[in-house]
Amino acid sequence: MTRLHVQVNPASMLAGEITEERVRAGAAAFGDGLALSFGTTPAALEAGLAEAEVLLLTGKAPLEDLGRRAPRLRWLSYTSAGVEWLVDTDFPPRLQLTNASGTHEPKAAEFTLMAVLMLNNHLPQLLAATRERRWAPRSGGTVAGRTALILGMGALGGAAATALQRQGMRIIGNSHGGRPHPAVAVMTTGEGFRAHLPEADVLVIALPLTAATRGLIGRAELDLLPRHAGVVNIGRGEILDDAALAAKLREGSLGGAVLDALPQEPLPPDSPLWDTPNLIITPHCGLYDPTAYGPRCLDGFFANLRRFQAGEPLAHRVLPDRGY
Amino acid sequence: MTRLHVQVNPASMLAGEITEERVRAGAAAFGDGLALSFGTTPAALEAGLAEAEVLLLTGKAPLEDLGRRAPRLRWLSYTSAGVEWLVDTDFPPRLQLTNASGTHEPKAAEFTLMAVLMLNNHLPQLLAATRERRWAPRSGGTVAGRTALILGMGALGGAAATALQRQGMRIIGNSHGGRPHPAVAVMTTGEGFRAHLPEADVLVIALPLTAATRGLIGRAELDLLPRHAGVVNIGRGEILDDAALAAKLREGSLGGAVLDALPQEPLPPDSPLWDTPNLIITPHCGLYDPTAYGPRCLDGFFANLRRFQAGEPLAHRVLPDRGY
Ligand SMILES: NC(=O)c1ccc[n+]([C@@H]2O[C@H](COP(=O)([O-])OP(=O)(O)OC[C@H]3O[C@@H](n4cnc5c(N)ncnc54)[C@H](OP(=O)(O)O)[C@@H]3O)[C@@H](O)[C@H]2O)c1
Ligand SMILES: NC(=O)c1ccc[n+]([C@@H]2O[C@H](COP(=O)([O-])OP(=O)(O)OC[C@H]3O[C@@H](n4cnc5c(N)ncnc54)[C@H](OP(=O)(O)O)[C@@H]3O)[C@@H](O)[C@H]2O)c1
Repeated sequence: MTRLHVQVNPASMLAGEITEERVRAGAAAFGDGLALSFGTTPAALEAGLAEAEVLLLTGKAPLEDLGRRAPRLRWLSYTSAGVEWLVDTDFPPRLQLTNASGTHEPKAAEFTLMAVLMLNNHLPQLLAATRERRWAPRSGGTVAGRTALILGMGALGGAAATALQRQGMRIIGNSHGGRPHPAVAVMTTGEGFRAHLPEADVLVIALPLTAATRGLIGRAELDLLPRHAGVVNIGRGEILDDAALAAKLREGSLGGAVLDALPQEPLPPDSPLWDTPNLIITPHCGLYDPTAYGPRCLDGFFANLRRFQAGEPLAHRVLPDRGY
Repeated sequence: MTRLHVQVNPASMLAGEITEERVRAGAAAFGDGLALSFGTTPAALEAGLAEAEVLLLTGKAPLEDLGRRAPRLRWLSYTSAGVEWLVDTDFPPRLQLTNASGTHEPKAAEFTLMAVLMLNNHLPQLLAATRERRWAPRSGGTVAGRTALILGMGALGGAAATALQRQGMRIIGNSHGGRPHPAVAVMTTGEGFRAHLPEADVLVIALPLTAATRGLIGRAELDLLPRHAGVVNIGRGEILDDAALAAKLREGSLGGAVLDALPQEPLPPDSPLWDTPNLIITPHCGLYDPTAYGPRCLDGFFANLRRFQAGEPLAHRVLPDRGY
């Protein structure tokens, strides 16, 4: 029998999705093979940790000293994809960490496609003209035939690549290991993406935030893009130097940008990004599906729980030393 | 030998596309089978009309009394898709009229997809919050699984249907004749679309402007849409009651709208549409491809010219009594 504790931080945007009712419904299929506790308070977390082999966690929680507080814990499953704060926590070596990478795939595909189409159709410029009540037509060619450079070819980048390639775009990918992807024409690793910046009509950032990716795209990299190019960030804000991006947009030496991931979230009212020309901000909501996220995420977790019980390798493992 | 006159109105947006050089390059393949004149002035038009069997026309021109002015003219090919002004002109019965329907297909597909994705992702609302420097996340589900009702299933509507269906949308079509289309789940004709308004997540208008379509979508039709629905107009502005649309957007009883076709073009600076909430205006530029339009259009014309010389039926015929 596996002991599972589910802890939901009520302040998380996902609190309404990972509900006790949904968790119990999913757990029912395991019958006597699963003992479940569900909590939202610090006391419930402590009690859960004391017994659990598996912790399913939504939102943040204090996780210091788990070696002592959670003597049996072998697996922590987090219901979001970005784990930078978890990677910075010290865990006992027996503890495996997994995330919800993959849950966002359908929305990541649609959102990136929308962002690329908007930039290619000069929507930022047309929206600015509208605010000035100016009839100023501006047309672009099709995205078919253009080139997208995608940094990070995991769940997000892969879904984006498939969607953009299906529209006839040529895709250059970049990842850590360089595993081939069917939608990608040219796959690069590490610094290899730099040589391709000058041929990118759009740069899509779909990386996790790690020591290696923090500040990866700065003024020098943006300067290598063509002047008409667009930038889309669906990864994490800290990967892109937002001041450099804003300066280029103000100068007019970049076509436009769509940021779903921002350097500070919520972005404060006095941030200069709010009125940077040709910048479209979607406040970390573009990849979230309010009806499908919870069920998809729990399906993924329970499929992983079957693997756990069978002694098989877990999917979506985070390797803390690698940072994602 | 066929006598072709090409007349380009320098005021037309297409004047830079249908150039004498391009026309001569296309005509070269016909060798001695084609005699070509090219003009941009009223005098050139008169001289061309006096001899030509075929007139290729870009932009507007005075076409009254062609029976007398153009005694040999049998075919008028217009390099745009919308022909409402031509249909209102009296022509001798020997004259066939064709348009450039089909030239916009690739852009129509991409533009409609962009517009539908923007409405589904609450972009109008997110853009408004950005102007107020407000972090106000708002997420939507995927477009996959949603329903698009497309009015007009010709070149534009067909391309839009294919693009939206490929994203997993369910398509309800409406046309005059009801010819089946592979991307369409339910095909309706005439007034048959009305019964489907309540199930439309987005209404796409891709109709020509005719006596039957003028004012077709008014308050009553918009009221039948769900409150969250979006409206996209890529046909002609006069088909949609813009005051009714604006009133519903101001009330919040409609999700949003993207208008590429406006009731007046250019839209005057004092039009209330410019600052109607959740309305996105693309000033009749969304379907235009600045590099591909001219070549595609001329390819279509010269393919039709082969048919003309072979005595075969012309493609893209406009039937003036039908109005498109
Ligand atoms: N905007 C949002 O709402 C949202 C939603 C979900 C996720 N995210 C963010 O997006 C990130 C990616 O999510 P995901 O689910 O796609 O993660 P994932 O499946 O783990 O993919 C990460 C990708 O990045 C590559 N990578 C990592 N470090 C790299 C480096 N230094 N250089 C080049 N490539 C590197 C990896 O390469 P390998 O394939 O070789 O390992 C992998 O392809 C998350 O960490 C999260 O921060 C944002
Ligand atoms: N925004 C732009 O830049 C742009 C670009 C190109 C065109 N347009 C406009 O879009 C219009 C359509 O272009 P297109 O190339 O798609 O034309 P098209 O190929 O001739 O298609 C017209 C479609 O509308 C249907 N239709 C006509 N009258 C109807 C009615 N009363 N009720 C129901 N359906 C009706 C036709 O039905 P059947 O199939 O049964 O004949 C056909 O499916 C043009 O006339 C032009 O005004 C705008």
